[in-house]
This record gives sequence, C-alpha cells and structure tokens, in this order.
Amino acid sequence: MDIETLKGEVRTIPDWPKPGVSFKDITTLLRDPAAFKFAVEEMANRFRDKKIEAVVSAEARGFIIGAALAYELGVAFVPVRKKGKLPYETICASYSKEYGEDTLHMHKDGVLKGERVLLVDDLLATGGTMAASIDLVKQLGGSIAGVCFLIELNYLRGRDRLKGFDVFSLMRYDE
Amino acid sequence: MDIETLKGEVRTIPDWPKPGVSFKDITTLLRDPAAFKFAVEEMANRFRDKKIEAVVSAEARGFIIGAALAYELGVAFVPVRKKGKLPYETICASYSKEYGEDTLHMHKDGVLKGERVLLVDDLLATGGTMAASIDLVKQLGGSIAGVCFLIELNYLRGRDRLKGFDVFSLMRYDE
Repeated sequence: MDIETLKGEVRTIPDWPKPGVSFKDITTLLRDPAAFKFAVEEMANRFRDKKIEAVVSAEARGFIIGAALAYELGVAFVPVRKKGKLPYETICASYSKEYGEDTLHMHKDGVLKGERVLLVDDLLATGGTMAASIDLVKQLGGSIAGVCFLIELNYLRGRDRLKGFDVFSLMRYDE
Repeated sequence: MDIETLKGEVRTIPDWPKPGVSFKDITTLLRDPAAFKFAVEEMANRFRDKKIEAVVSAEARGFIIGAALAYELGVAFVPVRKKGKLPYETICASYSKEYGEDTLHMHKDGVLKGERVLLVDDLLATGGTMAASIDLVKQLGGSIAGVCFLIELNYLRGRDRLKGFDVFSLMRYDE
C-alpha cells in the first residue's frame, strides 16, 4: 500500500452536497481493511515520537479516524460534539458555517492542563471545525502537539488558519 | 483490568437527558487508554472466531466503538448515518423515537450480499437504532454474524427486540 493507492480508495462524488463541489467519500476506503490499517498506521507513525497523551476529534466522521488513531497510539480519546450531545458540564467554541454560526462543545474535564493533544479529523477544508477544536483544547490549558487529517483540500487553504502548529495530512488534493 | 473495574470508569449522570434518567457517560472510560483497549479487545475476542468481514455502526458514539473494533479485528468499517449525511446512493430504514419516527441510512454498497456482519453500538437501551441497522444490513443481503454493545441497560429490555441473534454486551446494568 502507498499513498497513491490509498487515494484510489477514496470515491469522488460530483456536485455533493451542492453543485460544483467534488466530495471526497472515505466510506470506500473504510471498507478496505488494508487501506484503513495503512492510513491509521501512517498517521500514528508520523506522531508516535511526539509524546501524544490524548487524541481529540469532532463528530461524526472525525470519530472514526480519531478513535482508531487513539487506539493505535494507546492514548486517551476525547470527543468534541455539537450542542446538547455531551452529558457532563461543557465548554464551547464558535465556528462559522456557510449560513451563520454554530458551536462545538467539549467536557470541561476532556483535556487536562498541560496534556499533549493530537487533534484529528477526516478532512481539512476551510479549517473552521479544527480552529474551534483547537480553541477548546486551549481553553482547558492543553498543549497542541499536532494536527492531523486523513485528507486535505489544498485549494480551500484551511492550512492558513493553522499556522504555528505541526500539521500533517495523509492525502492532499489540488482539485 | 476486569469488567467491574471497567464499570468504575463509566460516569453516571443523573437526570440527563431528562429527569429520572441516569445516563451512562463513556467519555471517562475513553480517556483511560487501558480501559479503552481492554474494552475493545474483550469485544474483539468474543467475535474473533466468527469470521466477521465487516463492522456496521450508527453515528455518532457508535463510530467510536465500531471503528476501533473494526480496526482491531482487521475488517471493513461501514457507517450508518442520519438522513442527508451520506454522499452516495443510500437505502434507509425507519425507527421510532420518543416523539415520532426518524430514518437511518447506509450506502447501497455498504454491505455485500452474503457478507458476515458484526453490528456494534455503544449502548443497548430500547434497541430501536440497532433494529433499524439490522434492517439495513438485511436489505442488502448481509448475514448478521453478531450484535455487540459496550453497555446494555437490562431494564429497558432492548434484548427482546434482538431475539435470534448472537448478542453480546460487555457491561450490563440492572439499574
């Protein structure tokens, strides 16, 4: 398995969720155990010597990649969720959506002060979700040890919002 | 690690999401890598000789347990999602919610005909979500090789809806 072969496991859906957008569908990759294993191991290997203590991921697709990566690294898994989904006391951060704003939430004991956190998501597009997740970790005094994506859409320039962090994307697309 | 110790890692939230309900919060368990590893390995070991080919899980907490379990077993991971979340052609199944009905969706190529499927969720309560997920797998001709939960609330009798299947719950609660 290599990155080009892995890219071949991603299905492109034209005009979804709206005309003009080519959506990268990872469900085909997730159906291939060798591809899923390769992807998770490559991401884990990239951060294995960074003393990661917790993986933080936002729902819902982020949970798939983040949980497997936390499991492989043998570290804590911490979910970031939409409003009203977490049962304990939460902190929150705002992010911009296409129409208006929304908030993301994390348990107030989700990340410990000084803990070395790896933030993980399936996709880096405009970076709004990730910026809000970073905000949550910082509010709790966590240390951002890395930011990791399965896929990055270069042309949406989400990386510009993540300056100063150790950002890694396994598969990058120019179109 | 044993089951009683694992149970000690689950946080009970009284009166959530409504008065009278004691919610089992697994985020505390997920923060302990040894507990998460033990839980996933115990579930994997229970089904390792059942020739599982795919794990099917519904969003969002189901993704956390299901993805780690699929990764550990080295099999396909197939997401079940709410309406409008999957980009390719889908099939759907209805389930009852507290107020009215809703639908769950799966890609039409999510499960192959004859494929041996393990359905996984974090929680067996009334069993509505799981019954709909089983319906989806059956629609595509998949074979239900097992049904697995991290937690089962015995008193809600969700197991009654899963008669005839090989059902396993790692932690069971009588109250």
